[in-house]
Amino acid sequence: MALVFSHCLYSPLSSSSSSSSYVPAGPLQSLLKLSRPRVLSVSASTTPSQRMDNLHNEGRRKFIEFPYVSAPHKKLMVDLVSMLDTRFDSHLLPCTLPPNVQYCQNQGGTSHASLHIRSGHVSSPIDFILGSWIHCQLPNGGALNITSLSTYLNSSTDSPNFLMDLIFSSPTSLVLILDLPPRKDLVLDPDYLQKFYEDTKLDAQRQLLEKVPEVKPYFSPSLYIRSLVSPTAILVRIESEGVERMDEIIRDHVGPVAKQVLQVWLDKCASEKREVAETERDYLQKRDKLVRTKTIEIDLASSLPRLFGPETADRVIAALKECFSV
Amino acid sequence: MALVFSHCLYSPLSSSSSSSSYVPAGPLQSLLKLSRPRVLSVSASTTPSQRMDNLHNEGRRKFIEFPYVSAPHKKLMVDLVSMLDTRFDSHLLPCTLPPNVQYCQNQGGTSHASLHIRSGHVSSPIDFILGSWIHCQLPNGGALNITSLSTYLNSSTDSPNFLMDLIFSSPTSLVLILDLPPRKDLVLDPDYLQKFYEDTKLDAQRQLLEKVPEVKPYFSPSLYIRSLVSPTAILVRIESEGVERMDEIIRDHVGPVAKQVLQVWLDKCASEKREVAETERDYLQKRDKLVRTKTIEIDLASSLPRLFGPETADRVIAALKECFSV
Repeated sequence: MALVFSHCLYSPLSSSSSSSSYVPAGPLQSLLKLSRPRVLSVSASTTPSQRMDNLHNEGRRKFIEFPYVSAPHKKLMVDLVSMLDTRFDSHLLPCTLPPNVQYCQNQGGTSHASLHIRSGHVSSPIDFILGSWIHCQLPNGGALNITSLSTYLNSSTDSPNFLMDLIFSSPTSLVLILDLPPRKDLVLDPDYLQKFYEDTKLDAQRQLLEKVPEVKPYFSPSLYIRSLVSPTAILVRIESEGVERMDEIIRDHVGPVAKQVLQVWLDKCASEKREVAETERDYLQKRDKLVRTKTIEIDLASSLPRLFGPETADRVIAALKECFSV
Repeated sequence: MALVFSHCLYSPLSSSSSSSSYVPAGPLQSLLKLSRPRVLSVSASTTPSQRMDNLHNEGRRKFIEFPYVSAPHKKLMVDLVSMLDTRFDSHLLPCTLPPNVQYCQNQGGTSHASLHIRSGHVSSPIDFILGSWIHCQLPNGGALNITSLSTYLNSSTDSPNFLMDLIFSSPTSLVLILDLPPRKDLVLDPDYLQKFYEDTKLDAQRQLLEKVPEVKPYFSPSLYIRSLVSPTAILVRIESEGVERMDEIIRDHVGPVAKQVLQVWLDKCASEKREVAETERDYLQKRDKLVRTKTIEIDLASSLPRLFGPETADRVIAALKECFSV
């Protein structure tokens, strides 16, 4: 597993979905009933705008269910999505991914994924926001569960992005990646380092988690992933004695830290206008593009075909590449 | 303590000093007899060239003594210096630092340091090589002992540098920093990452050390230092049960890994000619200069005056700045 092998989808809560999004995770059948038939049964009499809204709402509902993860894990994800929603909803366009990209499964029904992407309005500094979950039954009888949330700013600003992945290879084994990845070479720009990483005291959040006995540093097998995270990145492996203790760690430690890191991003990265010179903009665009290309390559290009088959993998990767402009 | 608070001095072994350099560490008085009087008593009848050789040899002898560290620690340092010596001796100029920079102590005689720098010939890719040791008695009766070795390539090549610091805050507590710090933004140059860090399998060395039970990851308090190291950097804290076990760890684990990392640097970074375009060279020079400036600022600017007094600190920092061209 690299940064996470499935970067994915974000869909903000809206008032109409807020109650249903908190219902306990249902089994696969109810999940399928909720999504595909509705999307596919849209009446021909609906307008294009209505069809887009339906598509968006359907995907959002699917995403926000987080049907395979524990209650504290789901609550954390919903809370984070809600924080983004509160700040940005009016600045974001509906998710227009095809239904079979917003939700997909493999032929055997052992792998499921939800992917939701919303682009920012032209006037917004947000390029797009992604959220996702993925669930894969493992040959040993267990399951892999990943939830992800990440934001991508456009080149009107050089502020850092936000990134969080929770990767459960079992209910008691978690890899957490939580960071504001920089969009510049920090070695060449100590002021940027000072502004976004030192003044914001982000390392204090990393240190808080470090104190939890079950938390150990995690080294991504991808050196590229290690290169693109910030010096205050939280990359940890958490192995708990039991499921209850993992719930406690998510609720009492991971949750507060994740919310604080997202709050820093909201306050310091997403809010402030930063003048970016024309030459600087070319550099930013080049660097952003490379990061996105490499992220797809490292994260998805080999694992997605293995888990979902080549056809679904190709479809999802093509949609992501279009969204990523790579 | 940052990267190390005292980056310092390298002097290669020569045949005339190889036996004396292995004698056990002597007390302060014999140390002083070895250095200052000899340097200061150079006869007026010696030629400028002879005086330069004397100055160089005196500093080298002092450096290579490593008078305050354990036998395995000293052996490791001497072995690494010897590896550099074997490869580069004829490409390096003598150390021309003033005697009171090559060796210095504080007024109370509780802090001692040796600093040795050799620049490369104009035709060499080596800008300079630094080696040092520092010894400071601590108020609790213990002592801080640091030994450092680092290489700086010039802008005829963009290959990584070599860096090693062993920082003992007690005989059983070590922070080890061992890396080939990149000289480019790795996010923007995946080929560079591949060539110097993936193909060389440097991470296997980090993983070898990670397996030693006493080895724990170390996070530098300086975010700038964390930013400038590579994704395969070894930044670890080693706490041993006793001095004998620490000796064993240095001899059996740290030593082989350090030698292997230096060998990679010798084979892949210092040997190969890499074409650097004019525009690329400006970038390299700018980045190198910033790294050097920040390193002095973080590493020495506050700690050196505290340990050696302002006058000595100013003298050493001025000499380093001149050497660093910053």
